[in-house]
Amino acid sequence: MTAPFTADRRKPLPNGFLAQVQALVGDRLHLGESIRLQHGSSETHFDPVLPDAVVFARSTEEVAELVKLCVAAEVPIVAFGAGTSLEGNVTPVRGGISLDLSEMDAILEINAEDFDCTVQAGVRREQLNEHLRDQGLFFPIDPGANATIGGMASTRASGTNAVRYGTMREAVLSLRVVMPDGRIVRTARRARKSAAGYDLTRLIIGAEGTLGIVTEITLRLHGIPEAISAAVCPFDTLKGAVDTVVQAIQLGVPIARIEILDDMQMKACNAYSKLDYAEQTTLLFEFHGSERSVAEQVETLSALSSANGGGEFRWSNLPEERSRLWKARHMAYYAALGLRPGSIGWTTDVCVPISRLAECIGETKADLEGASMPATIVGHVGDGNFHVVFAIDPASPHEMAEVEAINHRLVARALAMDGTCTGEHGIGLGKRDALVDELGDAVDLMRTIKRALDPKNLFNPDKIFVLE
Amino acid sequence: MTAPFTADRRKPLPNGFLAQVQALVGDRLHLGESIRLQHGSSETHFDPVLPDAVVFARSTEEVAELVKLCVAAEVPIVAFGAGTSLEGNVTPVRGGISLDLSEMDAILEINAEDFDCTVQAGVRREQLNEHLRDQGLFFPIDPGANATIGGMASTRASGTNAVRYGTMREAVLSLRVVMPDGRIVRTARRARKSAAGYDLTRLIIGAEGTLGIVTEITLRLHGIPEAISAAVCPFDTLKGAVDTVVQAIQLGVPIARIEILDDMQMKACNAYSKLDYAEQTTLLFEFHGSERSVAEQVETLSALSSANGGGEFRWSNLPEERSRLWKARHMAYYAALGLRPGSIGWTTDVCVPISRLAECIGETKADLEGASMPATIVGHVGDGNFHVVFAIDPASPHEMAEVEAINHRLVARALAMDGTCTGEHGIGLGKRDALVDELGDAVDLMRTIKRALDPKNLFNPDKIFVLE
Repeated sequence: MTAPFTADRRKPLPNGFLAQVQALVGDRLHLGESIRLQHGSSETHFDPVLPDAVVFARSTEEVAELVKLCVAAEVPIVAFGAGTSLEGNVTPVRGGISLDLSEMDAILEINAEDFDCTVQAGVRREQLNEHLRDQGLFFPIDPGANATIGGMASTRASGTNAVRYGTMREAVLSLRVVMPDGRIVRTARRARKSAAGYDLTRLIIGAEGTLGIVTEITLRLHGIPEAISAAVCPFDTLKGAVDTVVQAIQLGVPIARIEILDDMQMKACNAYSKLDYAEQTTLLFEFHGSERSVAEQVETLSALSSANGGGEFRWSNLPEERSRLWKARHMAYYAALGLRPGSIGWTTDVCVPISRLAECIGETKADLEGASMPATIVGHVGDGNFHVVFAIDPASPHEMAEVEAINHRLVARALAMDGTCTGEHGIGLGKRDALVDELGDAVDLMRTIKRALDPKNLFNPDKIFVLE
Repeated sequence: MTAPFTADRRKPLPNGFLAQVQALVGDRLHLGESIRLQHGSSETHFDPVLPDAVVFARSTEEVAELVKLCVAAEVPIVAFGAGTSLEGNVTPVRGGISLDLSEMDAILEINAEDFDCTVQAGVRREQLNEHLRDQGLFFPIDPGANATIGGMASTRASGTNAVRYGTMREAVLSLRVVMPDGRIVRTARRARKSAAGYDLTRLIIGAEGTLGIVTEITLRLHGIPEAISAAVCPFDTLKGAVDTVVQAIQLGVPIARIEILDDMQMKACNAYSKLDYAEQTTLLFEFHGSERSVAEQVETLSALSSANGGGEFRWSNLPEERSRLWKARHMAYYAALGLRPGSIGWTTDVCVPISRLAECIGETKADLEGASMPATIVGHVGDGNFHVVFAIDPASPHEMAEVEAINHRLVARALAMDGTCTGEHGIGLGKRDALVDELGDAVDLMRTIKRALDPKNLFNPDKIFVLE
């Protein structure tokens, strides 16, 4: 598998450091190999790298004290949420402390009238939505995994709802952050907008824990829509599917979700979940709004789909039937791996201007035809963002190299279309070279900011870029 | 008027510097007093401070060369657009060059299918919308003034449409920026979302030219809606008006604009434009969508207004009649100054969570009752953002001090409600102390970033905070 680090950069912990940490957190300091392995492993293809210790934090103040100890002893510290990131974003490549925030899972405040709430970083997406349901509110960002809100902020997560509700960039009003000097700052107030100074909130969102450790997040919420409908429609051609989406957006239809699944993915879903979808490029839709608005949206999309070579447009507003229609999407990742028992996943993502999406997916599918392993495509088509999931043999260095080459070509293709090397997974370890290809000198500015805020390079070192 | 600078910080230009600049830009270097006064003046109450010279730039590359000359000679450089900012944001308090970007007014690229365009920094909002109209597209951010897009990005502008379409934070996809070392960087690609590294785009938006000079902007656009309606409704009470808005948002009604004008403002508008509005707290609405959706929105808001003590709900979908209904809003600033011939304006803004808005405006109105000068309130009520416009006697230091004290209490009130000291005007010179009250230690982080990126403190010095 990919060797993500330079082993000689790992330094032994200074004498007495662990005793100091233990004095601070007691039995929430863990040194056992299995828990360290769990915090050093990735859900995808990255080699595990064990932290020296795992600490479960209980409060922002405790995190700040721990950071001060780490800085004094020059020990790296990597914040860890649910461990669901996909580009090795939390692998502690220089060892040190893996700081697990999952026990900081309190929902601190809900302001229903203001459509906002404040939560600790370890709160999970599904937990939050269950808690909000009774108040008629929901938090729309849905990256698939039941990630922590802190992790989602740190990777600038988005997912299926982004076409209507935006990404974590738009969803976060304010953060409480422990900085590399141990100071606790709040980046903004609870107002829905502000022109007060530099946008520290957005600087920390997507910084993957390299500039600060997010401990509390104030989020924008939305009212649960009066009506929800789902629909599914197969298409003769990729272009027909993408054109349907472009036209819908041009008409200003406020679709909540539009997902594209390619023929391979539909085949995988049928096999995995014993379904009978047409094994063609397929669009899945979800519509939110008033009864009248949702009915109008369904009508418009049904007509557009039909005009663009769509097959049967199946839709429903009944919760159970909606789930059935979307089942292919929910199971997509495991269904893809199911194409090859024993495989592990390598999943990558790019995002391009929507006018180039059909071309980008088309060329990528052509490239995948020669691949040794099964690969499927799933995308958030309203944003121009799509994923390729490779089911690779974990024992084969040859396959790793092959996927690396395909991924490199995919990123180059997206950049040539003025797209980005990652729409939502982040840079982590896997896309560091791609970031330089994408932004050139701007990466130096990132390095300058990192050096200014974390001069000892202790906060999640070697992620996004290597400093020295 | 307010003395915004420390005079002894102004250094004479080094010998030979102006000759170098002239070699670069020829007769686009201006030293005449009237043009320097124009670039050193503010639309509001700030004392003018003249730059040593005004330069009209024609290209990003030229800006980069000029920046290199300034850095070598340690001459301050302040980017200037339309000069419509309200907190002294472009006053060159340490002299140096006022860099006028208004001649960089080319619309470089429109990608209709992607709903984006790229423009030079000097393009004005109205110019852009006129250009886009034929393609069925529009750029929604509307701060009132016909500002430049570069200036709007630099102050994180928003305005009447923000409740539905967001602010410049959401509207900008990517920036081309000249950094203080003379490097030209592009902060992002044209994809609608990205998780690629630090969000440099958002860092530069709202930095008021202190970290980089924006020369090109890639913007998200929207389709001109199929139907537009406007409406106006007076209310017995402030609370009734605000409750109407909160309930509409709770119901998920996608209102495009909701403005609140207080009784004083309505009185001013009637007098200024010979109108016959009820002189009560009034809401102005604009609805965008399909014919059916707009009709539904009008119906919902009419019912909600009536249930909350609203008077006659007048609405129209005819362009001319819509303009008439909104006339009070478009003339608000000049109407407020018209309450007192010969006065100049001091306009401030705060933004609070919407649940506190009625209380915040109510307490502010009570505070204004004792004021020596006329003052009106106008607000973007869907965002919790409102302005107070004071019509002050320019010759009276006493009135300046009085408004300063009222403004200080207003900011303290907004902060106590977890709001921000500015929703859209920015910090400039006028809100530097307020920023510290609002964010405390976080302002130190801003200073750290500024020092790292602009170590000689030459880019719009003394704005947002004083560095040393």
